[in-house]
Amino acid sequence: METKSQRVSSLKAGMRVDAAYVLKRKLLKKNPDGSRFVLFQFSDSTGVIGGILWDDAEITYKRLAQGGFVRLVGEVQTYRDTQQVRVFQVEPLEGERLDLADFLPVTPYDRDELFAEWMSHVDAISDPVLAALLRDMAEDEDLSWRFRSAPAGKTWHHPYVGGLLEHVVKLCRIAKAVCDLYPELDRDLMMAACYLHDLGKVRELDYAAAIEYNSEGRLVGHVVQGVEILDEFLPRHPELSRETAIRLKHLIVSHQGTYEYGSPKLPMSLEAIAFHHIDNLDAQIDGFARVIREGRESQGDDSQWTGIHRLLGRPLFIGEDRHGD
Amino acid sequence: METKSQRVSSLKAGMRVDAAYVLKRKLLKKNPDGSRFVLFQFSDSTGVIGGILWDDAEITYKRLAQGGFVRLVGEVQTYRDTQQVRVFQVEPLEGERLDLADFLPVTPYDRDELFAEWMSHVDAISDPVLAALLRDMAEDEDLSWRFRSAPAGKTWHHPYVGGLLEHVVKLCRIAKAVCDLYPELDRDLMMAACYLHDLGKVRELDYAAAIEYNSEGRLVGHVVQGVEILDEFLPRHPELSRETAIRLKHLIVSHQGTYEYGSPKLPMSLEAIAFHHIDNLDAQIDGFARVIREGRESQGDDSQWTGIHRLLGRPLFIGEDRHGD
Amino acid sequence: METKSQRVSSLKAGMRVDAAYVLKRKLLKKNPDGSRFVLFQFSDSTGVIGGILWDDAEITYKRLAQGGFVRLVGEVQTYRDTQQVRVFQVEPLEGERLDLADFLPVTPYDRDELFAEWMSHVDAISDPVLAALLRDMAEDEDLSWRFRSAPAGKTWHHPYVGGLLEHVVKLCRIAKAVCDLYPELDRDLMMAACYLHDLGKVRELDYAAAIEYNSEGRLVGHVVQGVEILDEFLPRHPELSRETAIRLKHLIVSHQGTYEYGSPKLPMSLEAIAFHHIDNLDAQIDGFARVIREGRESQGDDSQWTGIHRLLGRPLFIGEDRHGD
Amino acid sequence: METKSQRVSSLKAGMRVDAAYVLKRKLLKKNPDGSRFVLFQFSDSTGVIGGILWDDAEITYKRLAQGGFVRLVGEVQTYRDTQQVRVFQVEPLEGERLDLADFLPVTPYDRDELFAEWMSHVDAISDPVLAALLRDMAEDEDLSWRFRSAPAGKTWHHPYVGGLLEHVVKLCRIAKAVCDLYPELDRDLMMAACYLHDLGKVRELDYAAAIEYNSEGRLVGHVVQGVEILDEFLPRHPELSRETAIRLKHLIVSHQGTYEYGSPKLPMSLEAIAFHHIDNLDAQIDGFARVIREGRESQGDDSQWTGIHRLLGRPLFIGEDRHGD
Amino acid sequence: METKSQRVSSLKAGMRVDAAYVLKRKLLKKNPDGSRFVLFQFSDSTGVIGGILWDDAEITYKRLAQGGFVRLVGEVQTYRDTQQVRVFQVEPLEGERLDLADFLPVTPYDRDELFAEWMSHVDAISDPVLAALLRDMAEDEDLSWRFRSAPAGKTWHHPYVGGLLEHVVKLCRIAKAVCDLYPELDRDLMMAACYLHDLGKVRELDYAAAIEYNSEGRLVGHVVQGVEILDEFLPRHPELSRETAIRLKHLIVSHQGTYEYGSPKLPMSLEAIAFHHIDNLDAQIDGFARVIREGRESQGDDSQWTGIHRLLGRPLFIGEDRHGD
Amino acid sequence: METKSQRVSSLKAGMRVDAAYVLKRKLLKKNPDGSRFVLFQFSDSTGVIGGILWDDAEITYKRLAQGGFVRLVGEVQTYRDTQQVRVFQVEPLEGERLDLADFLPVTPYDRDELFAEWMSHVDAISDPVLAALLRDMAEDEDLSWRFRSAPAGKTWHHPYVGGLLEHVVKLCRIAKAVCDLYPELDRDLMMAACYLHDLGKVRELDYAAAIEYNSEGRLVGHVVQGVEILDEFLPRHPELSRETAIRLKHLIVSHQGTYEYGSPKLPMSLEAIAFHHIDNLDAQIDGFARVIREGRESQGDDSQWTGIHRLLGRPLFIGEDRHGD
Repeated sequence: METKSQRVSSLKAGMRVDAAYVLKRKLLKKNPDGSRFVLFQFSDSTGVIGGILWDDAEITYKRLAQGGFVRLVGEVQTYRDTQQVRVFQVEPLEGERLDLADFLPVTPYDRDELFAEWMSHVDAISDPVLAALLRDMAEDEDLSWRFRSAPAGKTWHHPYVGGLLEHVVKLCRIAKAVCDLYPELDRDLMMAACYLHDLGKVRELDYAAAIEYNSEGRLVGHVVQGVEILDEFLPRHPELSRETAIRLKHLIVSHQGTYEYGSPKLPMSLEAIAFHHIDNLDAQIDGFARVIREGRESQGDDSQWTGIHRLLGRPLFIGEDRHGD
Repeated sequence: METKSQRVSSLKAGMRVDAAYVLKRKLLKKNPDGSRFVLFQFSDSTGVIGGILWDDAEITYKRLAQGGFVRLVGEVQTYRDTQQVRVFQVEPLEGERLDLADFLPVTPYDRDELFAEWMSHVDAISDPVLAALLRDMAEDEDLSWRFRSAPAGKTWHHPYVGGLLEHVVKLCRIAKAVCDLYPELDRDLMMAACYLHDLGKVRELDYAAAIEYNSEGRLVGHVVQGVEILDEFLPRHPELSRETAIRLKHLIVSHQGTYEYGSPKLPMSLEAIAFHHIDNLDAQIDGFARVIREGRESQGDDSQWTGIHRLLGRPLFIGEDRHGD
Repeated sequence: METKSQRVSSLKAGMRVDAAYVLKRKLLKKNPDGSRFVLFQFSDSTGVIGGILWDDAEITYKRLAQGGFVRLVGEVQTYRDTQQVRVFQVEPLEGERLDLADFLPVTPYDRDELFAEWMSHVDAISDPVLAALLRDMAEDEDLSWRFRSAPAGKTWHHPYVGGLLEHVVKLCRIAKAVCDLYPELDRDLMMAACYLHDLGKVRELDYAAAIEYNSEGRLVGHVVQGVEILDEFLPRHPELSRETAIRLKHLIVSHQGTYEYGSPKLPMSLEAIAFHHIDNLDAQIDGFARVIREGRESQGDDSQWTGIHRLLGRPLFIGEDRHGD
Repeated sequence: METKSQRVSSLKAGMRVDAAYVLKRKLLKKNPDGSRFVLFQFSDSTGVIGGILWDDAEITYKRLAQGGFVRLVGEVQTYRDTQQVRVFQVEPLEGERLDLADFLPVTPYDRDELFAEWMSHVDAISDPVLAALLRDMAEDEDLSWRFRSAPAGKTWHHPYVGGLLEHVVKLCRIAKAVCDLYPELDRDLMMAACYLHDLGKVRELDYAAAIEYNSEGRLVGHVVQGVEILDEFLPRHPELSRETAIRLKHLIVSHQGTYEYGSPKLPMSLEAIAFHHIDNLDAQIDGFARVIREGRESQGDDSQWTGIHRLLGRPLFIGEDRHGD
Repeated sequence: METKSQRVSSLKAGMRVDAAYVLKRKLLKKNPDGSRFVLFQFSDSTGVIGGILWDDAEITYKRLAQGGFVRLVGEVQTYRDTQQVRVFQVEPLEGERLDLADFLPVTPYDRDELFAEWMSHVDAISDPVLAALLRDMAEDEDLSWRFRSAPAGKTWHHPYVGGLLEHVVKLCRIAKAVCDLYPELDRDLMMAACYLHDLGKVRELDYAAAIEYNSEGRLVGHVVQGVEILDEFLPRHPELSRETAIRLKHLIVSHQGTYEYGSPKLPMSLEAIAFHHIDNLDAQIDGFARVIREGRESQGDDSQWTGIHRLLGRPLFIGEDRHGD
Repeated sequence: METKSQRVSSLKAGMRVDAAYVLKRKLLKKNPDGSRFVLFQFSDSTGVIGGILWDDAEITYKRLAQGGFVRLVGEVQTYRDTQQVRVFQVEPLEGERLDLADFLPVTPYDRDELFAEWMSHVDAISDPVLAALLRDMAEDEDLSWRFRSAPAGKTWHHPYVGGLLEHVVKLCRIAKAVCDLYPELDRDLMMAACYLHDLGKVRELDYAAAIEYNSEGRLVGHVVQGVEILDEFLPRHPELSRETAIRLKHLIVSHQGTYEYGSPKLPMSLEAIAFHHIDNLDAQIDGFARVIREGRESQGDDSQWTGIHRLLGRPLFIGEDRHGD
């Protein structure tokens, strides 16, 4: 496959295609003679293109699920002034680890650098047992791929591929500065909280063709799912003290800070209250900044205010750039 | 040991003691000659008795933890008109499964019958995989002992040894009646919810010398702990469908029905909403009935009302017995 | 009149009509010669049909109220490919007790059987004075007709003719099972509460041409209206103890359980708290089941979730049928 | 009886007593010879005096209820430097209409003048049917006695005999001024609301020996009780339009303005919203003024602030008298 | 300029125009020859008229701001059956004090009479220092013009030019009646509160071309802005006691009565609680009356109810006119 | 005066005293011969000592106010085994700027260093007009003395002399780190917010003999008082843009983040939301750390939990020191 070089936006009539796309839509149609064919829409992060398959229509139609990844083999044609792919072959891609950034919006930061930064924080942890646990999780192939791919949310903050990783790394930077100021804080626990608190989001959200909460995410939720992931790794680190394990779980289950945001426990340790506020700080700055940026774009040059935001229930102030000339 | 026959209330001067008690208190004292001795208080569900140890005072003192169970060997004496035990030997009892009913308030029902009733509900479950899972949990030695011992709460409802078991069985009875009325409800899931929803309480509460929330219970909570217990058994039942597992977890994490009562998720399935109300029904009837019963006792014959209840913020109506003679 | 045999859906050109319908709409029109005629829409639970009246147009127009019942005499014609009724005579039907099930959606249960079941619960009441009161209410011609006709609500639960009766009978079944489990509960009061708690709905809602809250219902509400109905019957049963009367009223005024749902009093007796939860249980199961059923129909086969429900603020889980094959 | 001249504070040794008092306490005691006697405490609004009865002790003891009114015949003696009454006869006073002002704190205003003012407002009502209804209620012997006696509350505002009447009259004065300003308001309904909105308090509170909520008051509440009283008079005024009756009931059931203060309906008519605010205005000024007055007395001259008020959750500002010299 | 006589609704073809209008819209257009012209819309409270300018198009276009006042010199023409103004000259009007009533909806009361009434209340104030302060503010040219022009709100109550003044005067009338009833109230402070509590609205709202919250109003708010205005005048009245100044500020900052309505302090003085309720009374009656009036107009003769009001979340009762014939 | 060397804890019999103390208590007493004397209690941060004055008792008594500072001249005596001061002279100290640290608990940090750190942040501000404003405020003699003396609160966070300064400096450090991470934030405004947001506390709290909210603080509050202080300095910096001034005020009035904590406005700019969370972070860490520290001290070595905290409504976790040996 040539996924990287065959982005939708660069396809041209006559090109032979062999690449991975999202199967956005499929439609089984009937010819006048009663035979069948399939109309498709394929997409990646650069655009959408139609496709048509004449052979094995019904079998292929049934084998494919809308919203999934497929390997598409075919040739680009022009039909009524529009490009489409004459499909030779289209196969579901399962289990394969595609780079989601090819298909969805993605963090503006380099994910390798973000991940390296997280690993440097792990290396700086003073408790060797805790460091080993976190390194183990970071090096787990499946978890690590998901951790680098997951968004931090569906709409409010860091809602794109790599958003969770970006959120974690930004939290680490704030946490570091805060721990420098408040020596009472246990720095190891704070760093672990940056990584663990939202880790359940790798399971709560689907982020293939689109970013969506899945059934398990809606019914169980990333708070409990985060504890479950931690529980899968704890047996491999029996030297971790029972109190440390409980403290880590408390940081996960209390991080939203209040019941109404879905925390089953209120923060009851110093690290829990500090982490809750740091998390809120990063999430709210990212969310507000996005609303203001989009407001500036959509409201036109003159406007000082965004529209009333649905979740916030109020408009935000754009104002003028105080340092512009 | 002769625990059953040597209850604190039946000890008499001259009796030789060899039984299990709660070590309620220990105090290291100094003789005028500089030597040490230890004063004790031992208790069971029938009362408290003092004790004194002259030999190996410091070593023994250090080996024992207040609030734990001990095997006490000694002789009952009378000292200044009061009975106390001259202690010969006192050893911590760890790991041993004592019958907590000997040491704490206990359900008025027969726990063997309650447990048998629960097993009969398991037998009636139509999904053989789910039945196997629940049977597996019920037959696990450690979990089963805890399930039969745990209270359902510290103060509000069923706050005594066996309270959780009693609560589960009462829920099963209501659930059965409700499933008969509403065939849309999945009876298997409802029965499983009766058992699973509060199962985390076997870990959230300590119930040895007294019923108390422990640190893990306060920091993590029985909702998440319940999912953790389930997760420990699920790998042994791989045939259980993924959707069923998620539905079971949803029943646990949504059973309080609202965020402010500590549920990280609101009920989103038919069984979840039905179970939440059944659970509430049993808990509230048990709690109200206790408040009214205690009010009748403490307020005197004439009073129609209890005092203002601290949690409810209002008095409850006692009234007259409509059918009394 | 031949209402039962002349449902709108079975009318055919040439048939002579003499039956009761809802007058859905009336429109006074002018002929080119200045004379008047009236266009109508008539409906029952099976459909809508137009009508036209040439004689006595203005007088008839004024005498009829939209939304009321009428006796329609006429003949079915075909006009521009559509059936309509040539109206000979149309008279308001007032005071007559029509079977609302002919005009509105209706409970799937047999209302005679439901009513008989309620009477059997009355017969089982052990307090003869209370039983006499409830029998008296059940046998009151006007109240009884209304009780059998009223819906239990406008949208959320049992929103159809006979819905109140169905709700009462289902509550009785749960209440019976619950009273078996908790002997502290006064069974007679619980049964009376099933009947009385929502009785005000026979006055709060109009349920002729459509189910709607009427002005008295909006301004006074079924809670207070229920007490008023009870007060109309109490003078005929002076032997009923004052405390019993007060307890019955308390069950009415506290049944929603919280102030914000419109109860002027919180539950303060054991029966009040138990009844509140039983009522909630039946109402919520009925409401959730309806949302899930409609979601399954409207969202298509594949969907696991309903849309976000306006009142609940969240989607509900449809899932798969665990026992389907 | 000589109740007016024989107030507790003016009793002197040797006086013969024949007057009405509250029986505050009764105690059946045994003589060394096995015979019985009764110790009493009698009170009125001026103080408390003890009493002793030697004859027919048990029979008398049983016949009397603590907290009720009694006719006391006896003689004042001095026993161990304290005055007490040697009781000859003590009989329960039932059904008799005592002047509660002799026994409880009372409004500082003249109740006859207040009542006359209320009647003048009735006379000014323009709707003759409504005026007749209100006059009928005002002239009902039992209701009128209760209306002149009832407090407006237990602690917050106008908590004394005649408090309800005083509250009604003050509301009428504000309502009059407000109706002058807003001609859209229906003046008749506003005046009726002043009288009716709290009328249920004549039944909700007991105000004999002390001001207390009674069982019916706690379980049913003055909102519903007010509608019940109105319903008892409506059948005698069939000419009153149905809409007016509903509007009057709406004014009663919505007068607290919000659900959490116990209104089952929110204000939905112009008069309802206006009345709610007028009622609040009078109640809050009376309540705040009382707290500030008591604060000034209890905190000493210098203090600018009352203590933190239990219900308000904050201290109130006393400050200096801006116009003092 | 002839603003008063040249209202938009009275302009006729051939008339010469020289008057002030709101510049509702401006549009720079290009002629086929590349030259530019400007299309305008001008408005006042009577209507909207188009305009066209051929000369100095770009310069003029840039100098004018939409939504501002302009002096328009031109001639009325008819173009394609529609009147428009051939513009000779159009200049921004800044700093000039126009009568906003010519451009926006206005109070139905005579503003000179309202203002005179307010001054009579100032004259009646007994504290000469406070009276001097209020007179000073009333006589300040800029503040006084704004006070007579400002609306009391954007939508809910008195939302038109002169609305603030009308609101103040109505409050004074109620306050006077209330002070007559409760001599504990400091009448001077109550009158000052009527004037000061919403004074910040002269800065919070823009009320030129339309009534809108401005940036300062949204970011700082009329509560704080009111204190700022008061602070600007206080230095000129150093004899005012410190306590009086604080009491005045407290009346401003607590007048909404609760935190959630934007008061940073809860009422803590007798005047503060009384004023809060008076303010609420006037605002709510005005708001409800408007909703009912508009409901009667928009719902048709028959309807007894308004639609569900967006802010109130419920419909209001219109009912019948009890005194109509 | 020798305040620094004559701390209460170092006074010894025979020493001559001439120093400043808080006059904690005064009591005018009568000798048997009718003459008067005064008993005193004097305090500083090290302790309390009694005093006695024989001459000019009544005049002196009247001239002094409890809770104020006094200059005390006298001699230390021993009377009945207790030290007391024979008072020669005692004068109120008004207007003088004492070092409050001598009399009240004080920040553990060096206040000169803290202040210098704040000035370095001012120097780093890039907008010269804003820097000039802040420098002007910092150099104002009165404001500066108050800013260095004020606590940040009465009980929750930084409740000691210099607490406000410490809080500001800690906020600056976090703000700096946060601005490094989020370049969208206006660093100048963030720094100004650190200083301005709580500046009203220099007026809201009295902090002489004890830390207490004063009347102005309770009635107006530090939010509004902060804007007032800013308004006093703005006229001296007319070049500051209107938008910047409004943004600064918005940062003050929205810093608590929600209405219920007393903010009249919710955060509506990016800096406002960021600052709110930073402020919360520092306040909560300081508050939690204090509760845990005091819990560790008061609960004894073994305890893992503090008691239930009155404001938080829950206990906090102490746990073990993860890095202790």
